Amino acid sequence: MTRLHVAFQGERGAYSEAAAIAFFGDSVQPLPHNDFDGVFEAVATGQAERGVLPVENSLAGSIHRNYDLLLRHELFIVGEVQIPIAHQLIALPGVTLGDIKKVYSHPQALAQCERSITRLLPHAERVVTYDTAGSVKMIKEQNIADGAGLASQRAADIYDMHIVQPDMQDDAENYTRFVIVAREPVVPTGEVKTSIVFSMNNVPGSLFKSLAVFALRDIDLTKIESRPLQGKRWQYFFYIDFIASQYEERGRNALNHLREITSYLKVLGSYPRGV
Amino acid sequence: MTRLHVAFQGERGAYSEAAAIAFFGDSVQPLPHNDFDGVFEAVATGQAERGVLPVENSLAGSIHRNYDLLLRHELFIVGEVQIPIAHQLIALPGVTLGDIKKVYSHPQALAQCERSITRLLPHAERVVTYDTAGSVKMIKEQNIADGAGLASQRAADIYDMHIVQPDMQDDAENYTRFVIVAREPVVPTGEVKTSIVFSMNNVPGSLFKSLAVFALRDIDLTKIESRPLQGKRWQYFFYIDFIASQYEERGRNALNHLREITSYLKVLGSYPRGV
Repeated sequence: MTRLHVAFQGERGAYSEAAAIAFFGDSVQPLPHNDFDGVFEAVATGQAERGVLPVENSLAGSIHRNYDLLLRHELFIVGEVQIPIAHQLIALPGVTLGDIKKVYSHPQALAQCERSITRLLPHAERVVTYDTAGSVKMIKEQNIADGAGLASQRAADIYDMHIVQPDMQDDAENYTRFVIVAREPVVPTGEVKTSIVFSMNNVPGSLFKSLAVFALRDIDLTKIESRPLQGKRWQYFFYIDFIASQYEERGRNALNHLREITSYLKVLGSYPRGV
Repeated sequence: MTRLHVAFQGERGAYSEAAAIAFFGDSVQPLPHNDFDGVFEAVATGQAERGVLPVENSLAGSIHRNYDLLLRHELFIVGEVQIPIAHQLIALPGVTLGDIKKVYSHPQALAQCERSITRLLPHAERVVTYDTAGSVKMIKEQNIADGAGLASQRAADIYDMHIVQPDMQDDAENYTRFVIVAREPVVPTGEVKTSIVFSMNNVPGSLFKSLAVFALRDIDLTKIESRPLQGKRWQYFFYIDFIASQYEERGRNALNHLREITSYLKVLGSYPRGV
């Protein structure tokens, strides 16, 4: 059996890889990429059958970069998965807290562990890497004995490294939601979520009218966010997730109705609602 | 005349300080603080008459931390101001691009200049500091000749440092919106914006009903965002800004109506709409 190739941003052991395994299971073939553009490219060219992209963190909010890329590329959301984020302080075997002069990780992870670092390592320099797991890989490859990375338990396992201090995140309720993207849409069954982006001419009550198309059909929303349109002050994109399928009558009618009142609408995909 | 004391997060030359000056004018007395908690504390205790807090960036989205603090503290939003963010690469006089081995700044600024850094300084280490202007101050104080900071033009001026490369931000359309907080609310005139946070029991159509209270009164919204309630999956906080005053009939009626259907509602403040 051919294994499913799944592209993700980061090194082996990244949270995106954990999300891919949570969604597809252990048999998946993860394909690490340096940046999100690389993930889109890999799926678009067929090098990978699927891509995994973080879109929202419970502390940091929406990851706008990936929404921008979803607008620019012709890929479809075919699934979603949410995983807890727990950052471990990871170093070479034998390294203790007292040895650590530098903490390496992705800017987001460094920010999420700010208070823990200040408490445990008040004099440590915080160095940005492009990936959480990548910081652990680098420490191992360059044999950095006075540094530690912030990354997942999985990263410690993969690179055979040592957890100096577990659960460094300042806030325990830290979840990231990922979407699965593919070249072709799926026609999902069961409870279905649909993700859309739209904008409209800025007339009073226009957002209300756009939400009416869902409320009039008893369609529930699970996400709504306005985002200023770049270069156009006081105009907005809206990101909405709703519980219905674009391939069923209720969802299709809502989208047709929405097209009447929006100046731009893109359906990112309909997919089974994750747990 | 006593100068108005305005607390902000960061060192002298931070974007928050620029926002304070854009709002209050040059005569203001800026009071730098290490973190956002310190800003809230300074205003709550009367050490400062006003605080300036970033709440939303056009690229990175809402700054949830400050919304959390606004919920926890009894301060009021009394104004808003939006400023462009332009990051300069700043070093000691005489330092050129070829000398720079480390780039220091706030994680957000490092992220916003990622492509520029990779292009101009492919081998530079990126080191996190707690503040953009603080990185410039540190380079000066510690006389770091192989490093540069990412901060505002203002930071270069204040610390008498040299701009090695201007406009490092990857995306030119980079704005941050700040709110002004005080111990006492204001009763604003002219075009007024009101900021609220609320949550509701998760019944289908509940968000639509909550927006109906504004639409039924022809009140326009300028921001809406759902945010998952921590520890309660599928329940949400909603952040909304609308154009009306809580001290006038239309806005007051809308808020009274909203209280009927929400499980939690906090009015953060009514204030003159910024430009």
